[in-house]
Amino acid sequence: MAKREVLYESADHKVYVFTGLSPEDSIETNQFLLIHKDSAMLIDPGGHTIFSILFAEISSLIGLANLKYIFFSHQDPDIVGGMNGWLLSTDAKLIIPKLWTRFIGHIGLKKGFEKRVIAIDDKGASIPLSDIEIKIIPAHFMHSPGNLQIYDPFSKILFSGDVGASVKNNYMFVEDFESHKKYIEGFHKRYMANNKICRLWADMVSKLDIEIIAPQHGAFFKGKEVVNSFINWIRELECGTDIMDEVFNQ
Amino acid sequence: MAKREVLYESADHKVYVFTGLSPEDSIETNQFLLIHKDSAMLIDPGGHTIFSILFAEISSLIGLANLKYIFFSHQDPDIVGGMNGWLLSTDAKLIIPKLWTRFIGHIGLKKGFEKRVIAIDDKGASIPLSDIEIKIIPAHFMHSPGNLQIYDPFSKILFSGDVGASVKNNYMFVEDFESHKKYIEGFHKRYMANNKICRLWADMVSKLDIEIIAPQHGAFFKGKEVVNSFINWIRELECGTDIMDEVFNQ
Repeated sequence: MAKREVLYESADHKVYVFTGLSPEDSIETNQFLLIHKDSAMLIDPGGHTIFSILFAEISSLIGLANLKYIFFSHQDPDIVGGMNGWLLSTDAKLIIPKLWTRFIGHIGLKKGFEKRVIAIDDKGASIPLSDIEIKIIPAHFMHSPGNLQIYDPFSKILFSGDVGASVKNNYMFVEDFESHKKYIEGFHKRYMANNKICRLWADMVSKLDIEIIAPQHGAFFKGKEVVNSFINWIRELECGTDIMDEVFNQ
Repeated sequence: MAKREVLYESADHKVYVFTGLSPEDSIETNQFLLIHKDSAMLIDPGGHTIFSILFAEISSLIGLANLKYIFFSHQDPDIVGGMNGWLLSTDAKLIIPKLWTRFIGHIGLKKGFEKRVIAIDDKGASIPLSDIEIKIIPAHFMHSPGNLQIYDPFSKILFSGDVGASVKNNYMFVEDFESHKKYIEGFHKRYMANNKICRLWADMVSKLDIEIIAPQHGAFFKGKEVVNSFINWIRELECGTDIMDEVFNQ
């Protein structure tokens, strides 16, 4: 069922999540709106089929002229599928990994839209949102070769895209990491590229002050204990190419 | 410039490639039509913007009722971007990696289309086309976590998707592998997941009798010498997560 929740709220800063919008034959997605003072960023706006309802939700929360950025973590259909709708109905800049700028035109980005695109290098970037800076950090090969995440130093939320994604659980916040593992294990073992990249990512994000890890699918890891449990779990995960021998040796 | 070429021709069997259709701000793609007797398979039909012209080309070559399958090697915009057009205008079955069945709905596949989808397991499959069998083989993490290739035992063509892709060269067939390396190196180093998976793939395809490797972008590797040069090159390639340390250790 469609719902909107507040993940963080202070006088100047708000983070909303929108869930339950996806078609029933498709994987459920979380969409995020980050607002600081008079500026907003939409994070991973989901597919074509949810565009209208998400557009209505966002229009009820902010003036559309305040939507400065739309962030696309990578090139998957559940991330870029609604791109044309957003480009046609807002003036927001599109933030995407540089690796995918020449691919997204194939879903119908029209010539002339290029000036709307902010292409981010592999190492990430800082993006000004009103008077604060939002951090864009690398998460390549988890799973996409060109994959970025957003760290919001104000709310201390890491918007982690596919990293931390869970399927089939029916709660919004992970209370007990051990019992949650069964909802994340299959996805991460099959979609993440290998243990080496999980380890590089885990070491990198361990240096950040994180209160919530908010993936694009499923439940959120809230509080340092659960956040650290997840980071320590993925640091040790054997996955992807580590366990593909049997598939290729037929 | 748009063109159509014959890659293989015999009394019962034809393979066409269509190129030069992509928008100029987007990566150029090759589309393939494989015809055996009265049955055809379209391989990686490209994005939304080329649908109309490719549809016209194909309609001029076969009766649309003979288009039995449309093969999508993975989930990228330059592969699935035109999916809805094909589903609405043909009765072809859609062949895709099982890993992506719940993602492609986000570009607008309507409920009820599920019965059009043939979801392929990680290990691949054989698909009947008239009285022959077309092989679907694994190429996961090169680059997509769920990535398949087509091997046609009749023409001995391996339709390799992103593997072997070249950019910015202006010839159709690789004559000299050494001088072609500069057009493939950057792409493969950055998009392929790591050397381990390149090696697994190289060892697997070395067992096939291949006359042409036909990627979705750029030039074709024709003849055993050039084919083997490419396979031996990628077997030794350090790429992806092998060389990502610096990006994450900032």
